[in-house]
Amino acid sequence: MRVYLAGPEVFLPNAREVLDAKIALARRHGFIPVSPGDLEIEHKPTKREFGLAISAVNEKLMLSAEAIIANLTPFRGIAADTGTVYELGFMCARGCPAFGFSNVAQSHFERLQIYYDGKIAGDAQGRPRGPDGLAVEDFDMVENLMLDGGIEARGGAFVTRTVPPGQLFTDLTAFEECLAIAARRLLEGGASSAP
Amino acid sequence: MRVYLAGPEVFLPNAREVLDAKIALARRHGFIPVSPGDLEIEHKPTKREFGLAISAVNEKLMLSAEAIIANLTPFRGIAADTGTVYELGFMCARGCPAFGFSNVAQSHFERLQIYYDGKIAGDAQGRPRGPDGLAVEDFDMVENLMLDGGIEARGGAFVTRTVPPGQLFTDLTAFEECLAIAARRLLEGGASSAP
Repeated sequence: MRVYLAGPEVFLPNAREVLDAKIALARRHGFIPVSPGDLEIEHKPTKREFGLAISAVNEKLMLSAEAIIANLTPFRGIAADTGTVYELGFMCARGCPAFGFSNVAQSHFERLQIYYDGKIAGDAQGRPRGPDGLAVEDFDMVENLMLDGGIEARGGAFVTRTVPPGQLFTDLTAFEECLAIAARRLLEGGASSAP
Repeated sequence: MRVYLAGPEVFLPNAREVLDAKIALARRHGFIPVSPGDLEIEHKPTKREFGLAISAVNEKLMLSAEAIIANLTPFRGIAADTGTVYELGFMCARGCPAFGFSNVAQSHFERLQIYYDGKIAGDAQGRPRGPDGLAVEDFDMVENLMLDGGIEARGGAFVTRTVPPGQLFTDLTAFEECLAIAARRLLEGGASSAP
């Protein structure tokens, strides 16, 4: 089974090394990994055309895959990398089994409490809101409910973990836990083990 | 044509008012609007189950739509709302025409320059990176290249605009510009006007 390995690792200084480690782990768990950066992108006359070519290659790679494992660790803020989230939605629409992991164990609500410095209060209807008036989702979820919901609806799992400082995007323990769960559910033909 | 109106307006204190204004504008441009919050969600025993029910309803609404207009204005940080981005990827995978707008006119690269306080420098290969080592996308795009690329590949447009302070999520000028472009491209049967 071909599994698309989505995540912001492509932005790391040691991207190739981390992507190769993810590819090796996916193989060890019985999957055929498909990873952004697998294909060479030919030179283009403008930056924008080059970016569009990367997008087209990644979409093509996704269309060649049957499942996704997405690194949804908060990226440059309190939420997941938008490129990765686009890819999660893309694969969920295709009906593919979807798995997510985050190297931050806090829930979406806990991250928002920090973002709002604890200043979350109920409105007239009792709905929690930040000082900016925006409603604060409190659904016992890791991310926005569309992400957690999309993963769960496709039989996947969302694994979270606290990792040592400085290893936010390089610790692959949660990723490997995703692989183990995905292998049990998708590769072992476990019709008899399903409830 | 049914068009799904994705965006973080659902979190606003005056969500219903803004959603109704979007719905009215979409109708005025000839579309049948489909909007999160259109359907009642029945009560559930836990917060998580309630969140999953909202996710399921939104996915059902998306499956009933043939196009999407996504509000990709930076939300609680420098990037778009992850729920909206999931929905954009979802509709793009279904091959639906996709349009986006942002009430922040800066490019992704310009927002990252502010995020990194101008401290972006080329690495040994000349690739721009922040002080944290993360590569900085510089593709003349509004958002992560998967978002801009997904919209462009489906014949859509990504409209940006600077709005007055305090109107980041309520100014509907860019949204209406999206509607006008979408109506021209999708409703006027413009085979003869296409290049």
